[in-house]
Amino acid sequence: MAAENLPIVRTVAALRAQVEAWRDSGLKVAFAPTMGALHEGHLSLIRLGLDRADRVVASIFVNPTQFGPNEDFDRYPRNEAGDSALLAGAGCHLLFAPSVQEMYPHGFATTITVTGVSEPLDGAARPGHFNGVATVVTKLLNQARPDIAIFGEKDYQQLQVIRRLVRDLDLPVEVVGAPIARAEDGLALSSRNAYLDSAQRQIAGQMNKALADAVARLAAGESVERVEATGRAALERHGFETVDYFEVRLVEDLSHPGPGPCSAPARVFAAAHLGRTRLIDNMGA
Amino acid sequence: MAAENLPIVRTVAALRAQVEAWRDSGLKVAFAPTMGALHEGHLSLIRLGLDRADRVVASIFVNPTQFGPNEDFDRYPRNEAGDSALLAGAGCHLLFAPSVQEMYPHGFATTITVTGVSEPLDGAARPGHFNGVATVVTKLLNQARPDIAIFGEKDYQQLQVIRRLVRDLDLPVEVVGAPIARAEDGLALSSRNAYLDSAQRQIAGQMNKALADAVARLAAGESVERVEATGRAALERHGFETVDYFEVRLVEDLSHPGPGPCSAPARVFAAAHLGRTRLIDNMGA
Repeated sequence: MAAENLPIVRTVAALRAQVEAWRDSGLKVAFAPTMGALHEGHLSLIRLGLDRADRVVASIFVNPTQFGPNEDFDRYPRNEAGDSALLAGAGCHLLFAPSVQEMYPHGFATTITVTGVSEPLDGAARPGHFNGVATVVTKLLNQARPDIAIFGEKDYQQLQVIRRLVRDLDLPVEVVGAPIARAEDGLALSSRNAYLDSAQRQIAGQMNKALADAVARLAAGESVERVEATGRAALERHGFETVDYFEVRLVEDLSHPGPGPCSAPARVFAAAHLGRTRLIDNMGA
Repeated sequence: MAAENLPIVRTVAALRAQVEAWRDSGLKVAFAPTMGALHEGHLSLIRLGLDRADRVVASIFVNPTQFGPNEDFDRYPRNEAGDSALLAGAGCHLLFAPSVQEMYPHGFATTITVTGVSEPLDGAARPGHFNGVATVVTKLLNQARPDIAIFGEKDYQQLQVIRRLVRDLDLPVEVVGAPIARAEDGLALSSRNAYLDSAQRQIAGQMNKALADAVARLAAGESVERVEATGRAALERHGFETVDYFEVRLVEDLSHPGPGPCSAPARVFAAAHLGRTRLIDNMGA
C-alpha cells in the first residue's frame, strides 16, 4: 500500500530526477513545503494538492535562517517517522527531507529580500524572518520545480511574501493558499501548539474568538482603531502574556487601512505569547 | 535569410512560449543576456552559444537598478536596430527586448543580495550595483529558462556573483564564461568605449598593458603589494584620472591574497576613469 511506502529523497538531484520524470510523462506536480511536526493543517495541503495535481511532493526542512537568535529553532518539534506516516496516509507521493548541509553548502552567500508586504506584523516582530523564508522558499521551488506550490493561510503574511517574490522573480509556479485548519474551539492548528500546557491551551482558543469578534465589529462599521484596541485588550484579559500585534491590514499589500472604518478587503492579524510559545492567527474581514 | 529575420519578443509570455517549444522538441537552448550597444565581445557570446546549444536567445535590457544615481543610465548607448542586425548576422535565433515596465511592474519589491564575492572591487566602487545585477539576472534566467547562460569574463566579478547565486538559489542552468574580446591594442571591448575621444582611446589601451605587466610580475614572484602599487601608478602615469582599483584577487572567492607573493590561482582587476567614462578590465594570473 502507498501509505506504507512513502519514498523519501534527501538530495536535490534525487528530488529533481523524480519530479522531472513525472512532468516528462505529462503528470502535474504539486508541492507543499513544511517544517514537519505535521498536523491536520499540513495534511489539508496534501489533499488540496491531490485535487489540483497528479502527484504531490512534501518537503520537511526546519530552516535555520528563518529563526531569530532567541527563537525556538533548537526545540522546534521534529518527528520524521511520524510525519512520514501521516503524509503517506494522506496520499502524498514523495517526501523531500534535505539536511542543512544540502540546503546551505559551504560558501552559501545569497539572500532574498521582499520589501513592503514583509515589513509589518511578523516582519516587525521577527527581524530577518521573512528574508529566511523568501530565500529558502525560492530554493525549494527551484529545487522541486513543481507546477503548483501550496502554502497555508495560517501564515498569511508568509503567503503574501511568497506570492510577491514568485511574481517579482518570475518563478514558473502557481502559488495556492490553503484555508486555515482549526481545532474544535477555533484554535488555528500549529506545530507550536504542542508546546502548550492545558491551562495555556484553554487560553489559546481565545485568539480565534477575538479575531472573529474583530471581523464582526469591522463589518458593523466600527473604526479600525477601536477594533484593534478591543482585540488587543481581549487577548490580554484572557491571559496572553505579550501581544505582539492585533491589527487590521489590507489584503492587497498588508498596508494599514488607517484608524477609521474600513470597507476595502482586509484581514485581521494577531500574534501573542503564552509562556515561551508564540501563537499567530488571522481571519478575513 | 535568417540574418534579416531575427524575431524579437517583448513579453515574458512570448519568450517562454518560444523557448518551451524548442525545449519540448528536444533542442538545447543557450541564452546571452546583454544591455545592447553590441560589439564583437557580445557576438562571441552568441557564437559560443551556437557551439554549445541548438538555439541561442539574446536579451537586450538596460537595467536601471544596476546603475547608481550618478552613473550613465540615461546616456548608455541604445541602438536596437543595429544590435538586431548584428545578432542576426552572428546566427542568434531570438531577441528578447522587454520594457522596464515588463521587467518591473507596479509593486515590484524583491532584491537579491550576494555577500562575499560581490563586496570588493566594483561592489565597493558601485554600491548596490551587484544587487541590481543579481536580481535582474535571476529574473532573466527564470523568464527564459535556458539550458545554458553565457556571460563575458570582461565583467568577471559579475560572472562570479552569478555563479554564486545560481548555485545558492538552485537555478537549473549551466553558467558559462566567455573570454574577453579585445581590440588590436588589447583594450577590452566595451559598449562604454564609444564614449571615448581619440586621445582617451589611446590612453585606454594602456589598461590592458598594465594588467599584462602585473600578471608577469606575479609570475616572477613579485609581491602582491608591489604589483598593485606599480599597476596603479602606471595607470595614473598614462593619464587615467581616477583609479578605482588595481588589485590582485583569488579566483575562487575574490578574496585578497595578502601583500606577499601569490601562488594560488588569482586574477588582476582594474577600474579607472577617463573623463566621464569608467573602464574595467581583468586578466588571469
